[in-house]
Amino acid sequence: MSKKENKPLLLLTNDDGINAKGLKVLIEAFAGFGELLVVVPDKGQSAMSHAITINQPIFLNKIKEKENLTIYTCSGTPVDCVKLALNKITKRKPDFLISGINHGTNSSVSIIYSGTMAAALEGYINDIPSIGFSVIDHSPDANFEIAEKYSKIIFKKISENNLPKNICLNVNFPNTKPENVRGIKFSRQARAKWVEEFEKRTNPHNKEYYWLTGKFQNFEENAEDTDEWALKNNYVSIVPVQFDFTAYDTLKIFKDKNYEIEI
Amino acid sequence: MSKKENKPLLLLTNDDGINAKGLKVLIEAFAGFGELLVVVPDKGQSAMSHAITINQPIFLNKIKEKENLTIYTCSGTPVDCVKLALNKITKRKPDFLISGINHGTNSSVSIIYSGTMAAALEGYINDIPSIGFSVIDHSPDANFEIAEKYSKIIFKKISENNLPKNICLNVNFPNTKPENVRGIKFSRQARAKWVEEFEKRTNPHNKEYYWLTGKFQNFEENAEDTDEWALKNNYVSIVPVQFDFTAYDTLKIFKDKNYEIEI
Repeated sequence: MSKKENKPLLLLTNDDGINAKGLKVLIEAFAGFGELLVVVPDKGQSAMSHAITINQPIFLNKIKEKENLTIYTCSGTPVDCVKLALNKITKRKPDFLISGINHGTNSSVSIIYSGTMAAALEGYINDIPSIGFSVIDHSPDANFEIAEKYSKIIFKKISENNLPKNICLNVNFPNTKPENVRGIKFSRQARAKWVEEFEKRTNPHNKEYYWLTGKFQNFEENAEDTDEWALKNNYVSIVPVQFDFTAYDTLKIFKDKNYEIEI
Repeated sequence: MSKKENKPLLLLTNDDGINAKGLKVLIEAFAGFGELLVVVPDKGQSAMSHAITINQPIFLNKIKEKENLTIYTCSGTPVDCVKLALNKITKRKPDFLISGINHGTNSSVSIIYSGTMAAALEGYINDIPSIGFSVIDHSPDANFEIAEKYSKIIFKKISENNLPKNICLNVNFPNTKPENVRGIKFSRQARAKWVEEFEKRTNPHNKEYYWLTGKFQNFEENAEDTDEWALKNNYVSIVPVQFDFTAYDTLKIFKDKNYEIEI
């Protein structure tokens, strides 16, 4: 891969696996933007978050190699894909990491469960500008018309401009007709949660089991600066994300109160 | 469980599973603090991060029920354990969630891979004050002497004081002799990463595979306000954590520049 260093190297990954429609759309949409290195799970890995495989071996398979497009499948998680790509597949540091296009929203609280955004965050942790793209519809045959159009527009704008070097963007597309899209909004992550509902069933051997389902609950319905508001109002939402879990406000309270725990 | 509402209800979980020494230590240490509801994976689930099980059924088994101690195992991830506990096992909202004691550190960047801290964050998302405890040693027979002593001290102090209601603490214990512990320090998450190294092997069927290993790289060796510094200097480290991935600094740059993407 070292011969074509004039072209940007784009690392593409996802969590829906090699057969996902969203991946095909992404590869087609980004074919003109550089050399594509695709490393994706060999099966669906939705909701795997930032999981990594430490107690099992990981298998890699190169399934395509042609000019500007190399595709590997990996038996591990989305984050395993990124780690292997950066450490074993290419010596050249990718110029961008693009994750998706995910079948299903990764706005607000969903980011923490998402394999798509975990892959993007892993890129970010490794100093690679990273973008995760997601559509709200999680069906296998989701419509990617809006995503295809705007992911290119956003990538061009981001890559051509002198932006903060190390960024990670969580981009979600509204569920509407293309002509209804009102624009692109930079947002913050809404405070929300999934109210879980487990369906209890009994298997043929009389053993009970559960299926996870859930309802989305937004605690900030009317906050216009949030990703949920943007999506509900037919904007493409972009949340710049980072990775620091420190609760600085709470830390300050502990420190201000000179709160000490004696030993 | 509704009869004993005068006692605090503590939800205990972990990611090392039902047979982990760290869990036994935790149950013994916290037995005096209230009614314990233990819901843990039926096998090791380290490095599962915030993964949830959506494409498979989840099995729950009640394996112990005596006064003040009920134990369930769950076939899913640490976050599945928390979701099931809150939604199916108890109608009473736990007063605290305690996760651990983890075999292996969850300081700095490790928090994002950690099942232990994911469980604690899931409690926090559900408005339950949550604490994750971890020791640096990840061996099955790790020494929990310091953890046992200080987890009780910290819990007492935190539960007795008028602290911010919804807190989540990432507590890590230094790897030293008990007499060397210098105190407890409130810290922030250090900027660090794991420099991955994959060991490549060939299986008996001549197929190549990889094992993930890694070396820890701290970008802020000398920052005294970080968790890594605290641990290295024999302090117990407490990082108050939160869950908002928004990069407010970057968001401000986009907004200040009136950065628009035309459509």
